[in-house]
Parts: sequence; C-alpha cells; structure tokens
Amino acid sequence: MSIITDVITEYYRIPLPEIMEDAKHGLHTHFEVPIVKITTDDGRTGVGYTYTGGFGGKAISSLIANELTAILIGKDPSCVESLWDQMNWGIHYVARGGLASFAIAACDIALWDLRATKAQEPLYKLLGGVSNQVKCYGGAIDLNFPLEKLLANNQKYLDMGLKAVKIKLGQATLAEDIQRVAAVRELIGPDVTFMVDANMSWSVETAIKAGREFLKYNILFLEEPTIPEDYAGYRRIAEESGMAVAGGENLRTLTEFQHMLQYGHVDFPQPDASNIGGITGWLKVAHLTQAYNLTVSSHGMQELHVSLLAAMPNAGYLEMHSFPIDQYTTRPLVIDPASGMAIAPEEPGIGVTFDWQKLAPYQAEF
Amino acid sequence: MSIITDVITEYYRIPLPEIMEDAKHGLHTHFEVPIVKITTDDGRTGVGYTYTGGFGGKAISSLIANELTAILIGKDPSCVESLWDQMNWGIHYVARGGLASFAIAACDIALWDLRATKAQEPLYKLLGGVSNQVKCYGGAIDLNFPLEKLLANNQKYLDMGLKAVKIKLGQATLAEDIQRVAAVRELIGPDVTFMVDANMSWSVETAIKAGREFLKYNILFLEEPTIPEDYAGYRRIAEESGMAVAGGENLRTLTEFQHMLQYGHVDFPQPDASNIGGITGWLKVAHLTQAYNLTVSSHGMQELHVSLLAAMPNAGYLEMHSFPIDQYTTRPLVIDPASGMAIAPEEPGIGVTFDWQKLAPYQAEF
Repeated sequence: MSIITDVITEYYRIPLPEIMEDAKHGLHTHFEVPIVKITTDDGRTGVGYTYTGGFGGKAISSLIANELTAILIGKDPSCVESLWDQMNWGIHYVARGGLASFAIAACDIALWDLRATKAQEPLYKLLGGVSNQVKCYGGAIDLNFPLEKLLANNQKYLDMGLKAVKIKLGQATLAEDIQRVAAVRELIGPDVTFMVDANMSWSVETAIKAGREFLKYNILFLEEPTIPEDYAGYRRIAEESGMAVAGGENLRTLTEFQHMLQYGHVDFPQPDASNIGGITGWLKVAHLTQAYNLTVSSHGMQELHVSLLAAMPNAGYLEMHSFPIDQYTTRPLVIDPASGMAIAPEEPGIGVTFDWQKLAPYQAEF
Repeated sequence: MSIITDVITEYYRIPLPEIMEDAKHGLHTHFEVPIVKITTDDGRTGVGYTYTGGFGGKAISSLIANELTAILIGKDPSCVESLWDQMNWGIHYVARGGLASFAIAACDIALWDLRATKAQEPLYKLLGGVSNQVKCYGGAIDLNFPLEKLLANNQKYLDMGLKAVKIKLGQATLAEDIQRVAAVRELIGPDVTFMVDANMSWSVETAIKAGREFLKYNILFLEEPTIPEDYAGYRRIAEESGMAVAGGENLRTLTEFQHMLQYGHVDFPQPDASNIGGITGWLKVAHLTQAYNLTVSSHGMQELHVSLLAAMPNAGYLEMHSFPIDQYTTRPLVIDPASGMAIAPEEPGIGVTFDWQKLAPYQAEF
C-alpha cells in the first residue's frame, strides 16, 4: 500500500485564441485550469485537473489547497471511492455540489492517474474498455460568429472528417436562429448529425415553440433550452416540442442528475468529469444513465472524456469543445479522418500529459 | 445615486469555547467568519458576513475577493435584486449554489446594511416589520455531551427564560437517543417546546422508526433526518412516522427549497441567510414558505435572523445556535426573560455591529 505524501495545487489562466460568446455566459476571453499533483511515498505522481470558463478557478484552487489537501495527505490513493466520499463529506456543509465538484474533480482525476499508471493500463481499458473509438461532434461557442464565419467553422469540422456538428442558439430573434440552423443544415447535407445548444437562455414557452420549428431540420437534440433546475420545464419542452433534449454540464452532483431524470427529462445526459467530481463522479452518472436506458455523452475536456466514453457500453457523443485544453497536452484529441471517430489514447495513465513548457507562461498566483 | 467604490474582504477563524459534536460533521473546534466591507462614493460603508463550521471559509473569501468584487465595483448598491442576480449569474457555471451562496450572502448582507443605514431604519422595520419579538429556542451542538451536561445545558436555556429547546440525535443506538430525549423532556416539563435534530445521519427506514418512537415525547419537529437531497425520503419520513420534519440549513438555492417543498416534504423550513445568498435569498425562501402555507424558521446567525423573522407574518422559530458570532458584536442576542422571546435590535442598519477589537486576534490570511 502506498500513502499520499504531497498534494501540490497550481493555477493557470489561458487566453482563448479568439473571443467567443454563448447566450447566457456572455463573452469568453480566457479559460482557467487548476492542476493538482498528488505524490505518494513510493515516488510516483498523478496529475489531475479541472477547468472553468474564466471565473472561479482561484476559489477552486483555494478549496483544494486549504481543505482537500488535508483530507488526502496520509491516505491510500487507491481507495478512490473512499476518498471521494471523504472529500464530499469533509466540505459538505459549505460546498455540496457547486464549486466543490470542480475541486474534488481535480483531486479525483489525479488519483485515477495514479491508479492507471500503476496498473500500466490506458484509462479506457482500466475502466473495462468497450472500444477505443467514440462518436464525436464539433461544438463551437459561436453565437457571435457572423453567418459566413459560422459556416466556415463547420466546414472545418467536416474537413477534419467529423460526422456531427453543434451550433449555439439564442440570437435576438428566433427567426435569426432558424436562419442559421437552415444555413448550417444546407452546408453539412442531410447525412451529418446536427445538434443545437441554447445555453439556458429561453423560457419554457419559447423553447417549446423553437423546438417545433427545428423539427424539420432533423436536429438530434436541443441542449440546455432553459435553466438546469427547472425539471418540470425540461419535461414539458421534450414532450410538447417533440424534440429530444440534452443537458448536464450545469448539474454538479449525482443526485442532481437523478432528480433531472426522475422529475425532469433529458434524452442525452452530458456529465463533465471536471465539474461532477472527477472520474469517480462521472462514472456514477454514466451508470445512472444506463439504469434509465439512455446513452451517456460528455461536455468539454475531450482529451479525458474520450477515454471515459470508450469504456461505456452506452456511449453517446464526445463533444469536441472549443476550450482547447488538449492543445496544452502532448496528445491533442485524435480524430480518425475516415470515420470521424475520436480515438482513445493507449498510453498508461489517464492519457492527458500536460506540456509544461507550453503551460508555464500562464501560471499565476491564486 | 451612490456607487460602490471599494469592496474589502477579511477572514476570521475563531476557536469555539468548547469542542462540540454532531452526527454527520463530527467534531467542531472553530468557526470561520468571512467579512465584507462595501464602501460607496458618498463615504458610507456597509458590513456583511457569512460563517462556516470551520471549513471552506478561505475559498469563500477568495470567491468574494477574486470574482464578486469585480461584479460589484461601480454599481449602485441600492439595487439588491439586480446585484443578487448579477452575482449569481456571474459565477453560475462554476458555482451555482454550494459555496457561492455563502460568498454572495456576505456581499448581499453588506448591501442591506447600506440600505438600512441610509433609510435610518432597523432592518426589521425596513423589511415591513410585523413585531420586534420572535419565538426562540436554544439549540446546542451537544451530541458528545454526557447526559448530565446535556441536562445542565438545557437548564441553562430554561434559566434564560427560553420556552423551547432542541438537542442533537444520532447516538450509536436509538435506545441511547430515546434515553436522552426522555431525560430532557422530564427536565423541561410538559409545557416547554422540544425539538430534535439528527443532522442527516439516518437512513429513511431508521428515521421512520425513530420518529414513531419520539411521538410520545411531544416533539415539535425532527430536523434533518436524512441527506437533504432525498426529497422522496423526506416525504416518506413525514408521512409514515407521523412526526413533523424540519430542514433547510443544507439547501443552498431558492430552487432547492422549491424542490424540497414540491417533491419532498418539510413542515418547518429553516433557511440560513449566511448560506442561501444573504438577506435577498432568505426573503425569497421566506415568501416561498408562505406560498406553501408554512412558517419560516432560521438556522444559525441569530444576531441577524432575529430581524428577518421579526419582519415575517409567518415567522416560526429563531434558532439560538451555539456558534457564538453574536458574542463578537456590540449587541449579543437579547432574550426577554419573562416571555422567552428574542428581541430585534432597533438601531438603524442590519443590527449586527462587530466588536473589531474582540475579532482582531482571529484575523488570518486567506
């Protein structure tokens, strides 16, 4: 048995290549990457991380450094279920869900990195791998892209071989949204899978009306039509529009997913390991989706989720997100250009090895 | 119109007079008090605060200093609804609910302090005051108190004039809990109101069994019998035990209360301004409880909640909590010894003025 001897927290704030916009969070200029390095008494180090859309990363780093570190030091790093429970209950009163789920995620992912390197297995195999390939779509934060740029960006996805794309909705009028959906469907042709994402910007009424309008464009799903807590609203939108609904990036605990599935409705659950308590939390949600006879998809963090989805018998879609964390690793996401499938890494560990030289200029105090 | 020119965040970590225990959070040795001072261009300063059970206060302070401050600077401090919405949405992705609700609370309470001092009114009158007196119970974190000490502590409450007391449950066996309940009921006599609190430690089955056992001791409510997200469990416990159920200190958003009332069951909702987004958040929950034909009670922070409850037509009980924040203010909670009622302060402002000399030794970096 090894013992955790050291937990180091680092904070990085990285500018985006261009300013991007969605309907509810506004303009994105940066993303943040808190990184955790967990060292054991046998000299091994596991690396975990989380990310944000530019806000809150310093408080996440504070929570790791000031609270979670004390919970982890001296413990057996292989006991991921026990440590996940201890981290969740250790800060339960101040932080059930919300920001805590990001902080726990970074630590949990580092523990899984230790597990996978010790086993000398790639993550998807350690998790009981089903295949090393998963379906993938290109999803940009493109609400502010003029139509021409929107089309060029989706053409770029087609040129990479992707067989599925997603665009943002939530323009000033529904007519503008419809115009963009129609133009993208015309560009990609009838055989490419097409999703849309409203980023919580609509009322339930508007979402139902919009969903009905989009039916004729053969949309796979409408993502986050309204706020994530409106379970009854999600149910109405799915039932009354006839459109399949996706969501999950704003659900922060296993019970929030359970409530959405029990009281609400999503056809395509999309947990994100970075904000649902890491790999341990993501797996619990993935198993829950199977219990509900659904697929599991992912949000963000494509460089890690490719391995998680590759381990799931009910894998849905990997989102290739436009926060390019994978560009700061030694293996950016690999897409097979013929099939459009994303390929899980075969190296032992979580398959996410940071390029420290490339990251270094963006490290900051927290 | 005035403008916010400065937001200062301070962090205090204060030892408890004695180590206290509850069934789920374990031993309490300290409490933390993050304090926010908001200054406006007309030279006025409002003071707000939140508190924790000893963990997470540094991350709360980080979130205020690094994220919420930027949202507040340059804004009109009187627009509490707008600023509450901006704070909640500004950090929504990383922090809906959870720890964010503490950080927003401290800022929101400072804004209300500015409102009340500008109006030259005590808080309960500014809020539409119903009475300056509210029912109050003594509630210790006393799970680890031997029986003799438990009884002495409740005798102390009776000596203060209090007409209601609460004790912690969750001993190793239900028989021990029953023994303590019986002994306290014998001490306080038949006319004093008596509540019990299991701090989430039980399964639903255990809670139902326990609730039935306690019926003969005339218990007003059983607080937090199980984890706060188990809405169906709360409903079963109330319906199948016949015991009224209380809860709310672990619900962090208005929608979490709405879900508990819609899908679950609490007879005595207990929002806490320090963890539900401040006075603005607490008032929203209080109005929701009225919509559900219920009273509203409080958890912790008695020095502030006395004014909030005094403004509510459906006021339930003020908890006199054993984190003694009020001992670090110029006006510790006032109980009328004849009636046992808590008396709301009449000074303009929120009625919580810190004794900075007394606090100073406990300030720390965050």
